[in-house]
Amino acid sequence: MAENEYPQRMQRKKQVIDKKIASASAERGLLLVNTGIGKGKSSAAFGVLARTLGHGFRAGVVQFVKSRTDTGEEGFFRRQPAVDWHVMGEGFTWETQDKEKDAQAAQAAWRQSRLFLADPTVHLVILDELTYAFKYGWLDLDAVLADLAARPPMQHVIITGRAAPEKLIAAADTATDMGLVKHAFKAGVKAMPGIEF
Amino acid sequence: MAENEYPQRMQRKKQVIDKKIASASAERGLLLVNTGIGKGKSSAAFGVLARTLGHGFRAGVVQFVKSRTDTGEEGFFRRQPAVDWHVMGEGFTWETQDKEKDAQAAQAAWRQSRLFLADPTVHLVILDELTYAFKYGWLDLDAVLADLAARPPMQHVIITGRAAPEKLIAAADTATDMGLVKHAFKAGVKAMPGIEF
Repeated sequence: MAENEYPQRMQRKKQVIDKKIASASAERGLLLVNTGIGKGKSSAAFGVLARTLGHGFRAGVVQFVKSRTDTGEEGFFRRQPAVDWHVMGEGFTWETQDKEKDAQAAQAAWRQSRLFLADPTVHLVILDELTYAFKYGWLDLDAVLADLAARPPMQHVIITGRAAPEKLIAAADTATDMGLVKHAFKAGVKAMPGIEF
Repeated sequence: MAENEYPQRMQRKKQVIDKKIASASAERGLLLVNTGIGKGKSSAAFGVLARTLGHGFRAGVVQFVKSRTDTGEEGFFRRQPAVDWHVMGEGFTWETQDKEKDAQAAQAAWRQSRLFLADPTVHLVILDELTYAFKYGWLDLDAVLADLAARPPMQHVIITGRAAPEKLIAAADTATDMGLVKHAFKAGVKAMPGIEF
């Protein structure tokens, strides 16, 4: 591209983008789904949590699988008075090896989630690793979707986890598939504190 | 799957995963790249930033395109004494319409980045939206890769932005392609505070 074409090209691009921005005028609480097998599903949710706190909003977090309470994100966000953080999992399914116990933990986690989903003062609800509850049959997807649909109209929700069901994607406003291009773990690097947990 | 097969299946899975964990024994500073056209590239970096802070580590952030300083993430993380945050862009290319000015801003941003990349007390360096510097020819990719390779061995770096060059992906330890499944903006919803900025 010749140098003198650059301003003209950017002016045309600006017209297109300004038009798109003008046509996006609705305001409502969004349902975001972060799925896929790559890194970034939960960390993107926690980045949005930081963003939300920066605007002075309140947030609730429920972790459906994680049982450890020594992660960097939990240690950090527990110090924030505007965040209500609940670690409610029993750990990875291959560690617990007990489907009934896992299902009971997920059902208790959903009861906590419903408290957030009924509270309009909670601006953002993060349901971390919720998708596994559908994969393993711990929760009924239609009942979860009904609770999500009945939440306060300006409340945002982020759901993370691999293999999000099609019906959940259909209900989402924004959905991202975190695709694995490469991962340090596969190259023999152990989970590094601050990066993986 | 019959109920009584569940524990056996999970025991087999645990053996496979335990073996993988045992073989991932290296420890080093990682280069992460978050690319793709979907949501979550920068927010995943900021989630890892929170995680890093939770472990008591220090971090530096350089934003290569963003010029606004009213985002939730900046407002939030600027309050953290362990974070050194630099907004060094001139805004979107279609807003500036001035390639030379954009290039100079990116070069100044890279000088700041090099200060972080020379400081072993900075555990995590986030180079937000750096990839556009290659797309628009503001920075030389080989020079950037050389600076990245020469950084302290335990320092982690996260680079975000669309269309990461192949050579950058090749240099990365972990790379994720945030794939766009759907986005609320395309459905007519304006950028919501706390979610998009």
